[in-house]
Amino acid sequence: LIHHEGFNACGVQDITSAANVPKGSFYSYFESKEAFAAEVVQDYWTSILGRHGPLLQDLAQLPVARVRNFFDALIGDHVSWDFSRGCLIGNLVLELAGTSESARFEMYRVLREWEAMLAECLHEAIEAGQISRDGSASDLAATLIEAWEGAVLRSKVERSGKACERFRDLVLPAMLA
Amino acid sequence: LIHHEGFNACGVQDITSAANVPKGSFYSYFESKEAFAAEVVQDYWTSILGRHGPLLQDLAQLPVARVRNFFDALIGDHVSWDFSRGCLIGNLVLELAGTSESARFEMYRVLREWEAMLAECLHEAIEAGQISRDGSASDLAATLIEAWEGAVLRSKVERSGKACERFRDLVLPAMLA
Repeated sequence: LIHHEGFNACGVQDITSAANVPKGSFYSYFESKEAFAAEVVQDYWTSILGRHGPLLQDLAQLPVARVRNFFDALIGDHVSWDFSRGCLIGNLVLELAGTSESARFEMYRVLREWEAMLAECLHEAIEAGQISRDGSASDLAATLIEAWEGAVLRSKVERSGKACERFRDLVLPAMLA
Repeated sequence: LIHHEGFNACGVQDITSAANVPKGSFYSYFESKEAFAAEVVQDYWTSILGRHGPLLQDLAQLPVARVRNFFDALIGDHVSWDFSRGCLIGNLVLELAGTSESARFEMYRVLREWEAMLAECLHEAIEAGQISRDGSASDLAATLIEAWEGAVLRSKVERSGKACERFRDLVLPAMLA
């Protein structure tokens, strides 16, 4: 619900109705709607890791191919949503980073964790001479995540996968050269 | 107000109070809060164009330098906001693209206009041999905008300019090589 409609557009009533629980029970589980947002971020990230995380650890592939396969799998998620939802983390950053410190911290943490996972592959790629451009593995990982978040944002406004394709076909090869 | 707090977090009352007009007058000016959002997007874009647009037309500079100067000026805006606001267009995309077709269309239009302006410089740079990598000028322009939007998003969650610096120091040189 939050991924589709946005955090501020969903009331606690909408959330509890969708979950089929009484509205009053919400605050037995979560201290506030912002605390709930932090759990939503964590849950979304756990789901991505469970489904696509193994691609980053697939030692049968060269490290750059692992990174490509991971982003291809993410693109597949957005294809299945018709590009209408965007990245839940990016959406919540833009809605909540200014107003909720606890949600902002959780998003900060998840983005750092994602960055560290990509950086591990990229570090291997740099060591193996697969990537020769300047920049540390973690700076490269961060730029990939940032460019990806922007591509998903554009895809959401265009309701089309063109920005994700540009990320795959132009940004990835340029940054991983 | 909307740039700082988010669209759904601001009520019509907050907006009219900030503008020092009676709440009831809002709907004499705007058909709906979403129609107001479309005007806000247009106003933000007009302000950016007025302040930084001339940098893209500064014929004393080579085309790639014009593009760099333009993004440097945008970074300056975000420095002055302590990186806490993000790009108003990106923010509104993520809040409204799923729920308001009129706002989504206005953001689509502004992003296309921005893309066309950058593409003009990049086309010149390609013709002059300043850029030799693959990809049309408009695809390159689009990837720069997308990577920029992601960098600003990350800056907002980190409250730091590091992602904007990565955009300037890693993405721009890689994409404009």
